[in-house]
Amino acid sequence: MISIVTGGAGFISNTLVQRLLDESRTVVVLDNLKLGSKRNIQRFQASPSFRFHEVDVSDRTALRSALEEVLQGGPIDEIWHLAANSDIPSGVENPDIDLRDTFLTTFEVLRCLREIPVNRLLFASSSAIYGDQGSTPIHEGIGKLFPISNYGAMKLASEGQISAAVESHLKQGLIYRFPNVVGVPATHGVILDFIRKLAADPGLLRVLGDGSQQKAYLHVSDLVDAMIHLRNAPKDRLEAFNIGPSDEGVTVRWIAERVVARMGGTARIEFGQGNKGWTGDVPKFNYSTEKLKALGWTPRLNSEEAVLMAIDQIATQEGF
Amino acid sequence: MISIVTGGAGFISNTLVQRLLDESRTVVVLDNLKLGSKRNIQRFQASPSFRFHEVDVSDRTALRSALEEVLQGGPIDEIWHLAANSDIPSGVENPDIDLRDTFLTTFEVLRCLREIPVNRLLFASSSAIYGDQGSTPIHEGIGKLFPISNYGAMKLASEGQISAAVESHLKQGLIYRFPNVVGVPATHGVILDFIRKLAADPGLLRVLGDGSQQKAYLHVSDLVDAMIHLRNAPKDRLEAFNIGPSDEGVTVRWIAERVVARMGGTARIEFGQGNKGWTGDVPKFNYSTEKLKALGWTPRLNSEEAVLMAIDQIATQEGF
Repeated sequence: MISIVTGGAGFISNTLVQRLLDESRTVVVLDNLKLGSKRNIQRFQASPSFRFHEVDVSDRTALRSALEEVLQGGPIDEIWHLAANSDIPSGVENPDIDLRDTFLTTFEVLRCLREIPVNRLLFASSSAIYGDQGSTPIHEGIGKLFPISNYGAMKLASEGQISAAVESHLKQGLIYRFPNVVGVPATHGVILDFIRKLAADPGLLRVLGDGSQQKAYLHVSDLVDAMIHLRNAPKDRLEAFNIGPSDEGVTVRWIAERVVARMGGTARIEFGQGNKGWTGDVPKFNYSTEKLKALGWTPRLNSEEAVLMAIDQIATQEGF
Repeated sequence: MISIVTGGAGFISNTLVQRLLDESRTVVVLDNLKLGSKRNIQRFQASPSFRFHEVDVSDRTALRSALEEVLQGGPIDEIWHLAANSDIPSGVENPDIDLRDTFLTTFEVLRCLREIPVNRLLFASSSAIYGDQGSTPIHEGIGKLFPISNYGAMKLASEGQISAAVESHLKQGLIYRFPNVVGVPATHGVILDFIRKLAADPGLLRVLGDGSQQKAYLHVSDLVDAMIHLRNAPKDRLEAFNIGPSDEGVTVRWIAERVVARMGGTARIEFGQGNKGWTGDVPKFNYSTEKLKALGWTPRLNSEEAVLMAIDQIATQEGF
C-alpha cells in the first residue's frame, strides 16, 4: 500500500507520515524543500518503507516523472495533498505565490491523476475558504464563500478543481478544512512569531492588531488523528469536513501573555490597532465541527490546552 | 469615462459594448480572437469612442502594456471581465484550457489592478459554480460549492480571487452569475449545435442525453439589461447576483422540437441515454433570482420566449 504525501517535509506532514508508517504503509514524500526541510524528514530516513523525492509538485514534468518512479514500486493507494504556501501574508503581498504553491500544486496533481489511478485524494483545505462570516456558525454547507486572502481563494479553487475531477475521473476526494493548527516542528504561525520576537528583544513583544482576534486552535496530533479517522470512515465520493476543537478558541492577547510567561514573564506587551493582524486575517470565526463529531471523533485537547502544549514545544524547539 | 471589456469580441459582449457606447462611454475591447471574432466588433469600428486591442488577457506582459496604452486616454472607470473559455466540454477534456482562459485571465486582470486603479470590476461568473444542487433552490448564499466542470471550478476560483482582491486593493467587485444565455451572435450552445447538425443532415437530429435536462434560458438582451441595472444599483463593495428568468426553464427535448420545426419540421429526433448531455453538464437546477428582483429588475422574456427568439435569430445567422 503506497501513500504519497505532497508537502511531506512540512509541519503537519511530520506527524502524518509517522502515522502512515505505523500503518505499515510505504510512504513517499514529495516536497520542493522551499518551506519544508530535510530536517523534518530525517527521523523517517531509517525506515525501509520511507522514500523522499525532492520535487516541485507544481512542475508538471517533474511531478509526472516522480509519480512514474513511485509506480515502479506498485500501485498508489492514496495521495495526501498537503503541498501549499503556508505563509498567508506572503501570498497577500504577492499573489503569484499562492497561485503556484497553493493552487497549481493541486491542479497538477489532479492532472496527473487523469492517467494514474489512485483510490483517493485527501486534501488539506482550510477554514480560510469561508472568508469572514462574522459570528455565523460555519458548518460545511454554509455559502457566500468569499475568502479574504489569496491563500483562501486558492484553497477554494483547489476544492473546486477536485470536485470537477471527481465528476470526471477521480474515484474519491476527501477535503479537510483545517483550522489554525499548532505544534512542532513549527515553521510559521503566531506562537513561533512571538517566541522569535522575544528571542530578539526579551523586554518587548509587539503584537499586530489589538489582540482581540479570537480563534480556535487544534494541536497537530489531534488534527492528524481526525484526518486518519475520516479517511477510514464510510462516506460519499466527495466530502468536505471542518476539523477543529469544539470550543470558541482563545484570543491573541491570551496567547501573547502565555508566551511571555513561558519565556520568563518579564516582557512588556504592546498591542497595535484594529482587530486584524494583517490583510487577509479573519478576526473571529465560529467554526462548527458537528459533522466530524457525528462520525465519532472528538479532540483530546481544547484550544487552550493545544496552545499551551504548543508554546512549550515550540519554545523547546527554539532552544528555550 | 473609459470602460474596458475583456473578451469583448465574443457573444455577450456584442450586446454589452453597444449598451456602453449608448451611455457615451469610451469602450476599449481586449480580446485574443480565439473564440471571439473581428466580425463581432465590426459594427463598432465606425464609432470614434470604440477601440480594440488584440491581446490575450492571460498574458501578463501583453495585458499590462495594453492597459498602459488605454491609460494614455484617461483613467479607467470600470473593467467588464468577460474573457473566458465558453466551451465547457473542451475544458473537461483538457483542464489547461479553463486554467488559462477562465482563471488566469481573471488572475492577471486583478494583478494589474494592484497598480492601476479602477472604480469597479464587473465579472461574468456562472451558475456552474454551484455544481449539481438537485432540486434545492439556488440562491446566492447557498453552500456546498462543488462545481462539476473545470469551467465551473475556474469561475469559482475567479470569484475567490476577486473577493481576496476586494479585501486588499480592489475598490469594488460585482459578480454576475450567468444562467444559460441565448441570442446572437451565437458562437456555441445547444441551439447553434442543433442547427448546424440539421444543416449537415436535414433528416436526423441526434441529441446527447435523453432530452430531459431542463434549464432556464435568458436572452442576451435581458442579460445585459440586468448587468447594467445592477451596476447602477447601490450595493456593497463585493456582491454576487444570480441573473436569470423567473421560470423553471425548458427541456432539451422541447428545444430540439422547436429547432426542427424552424428548420422545416421534417427531421427525426434521436435521443441518447441519461440525463446529462456530457460530463460536467448539470441536468436540472432551480435558480433563484429573488435578490435581483428585489432590486427592481425583471426580464422581458421567459425561457420559452428567449429560446424561440434565439432559434429564429441563430437560424437566420446561419443562413436559414
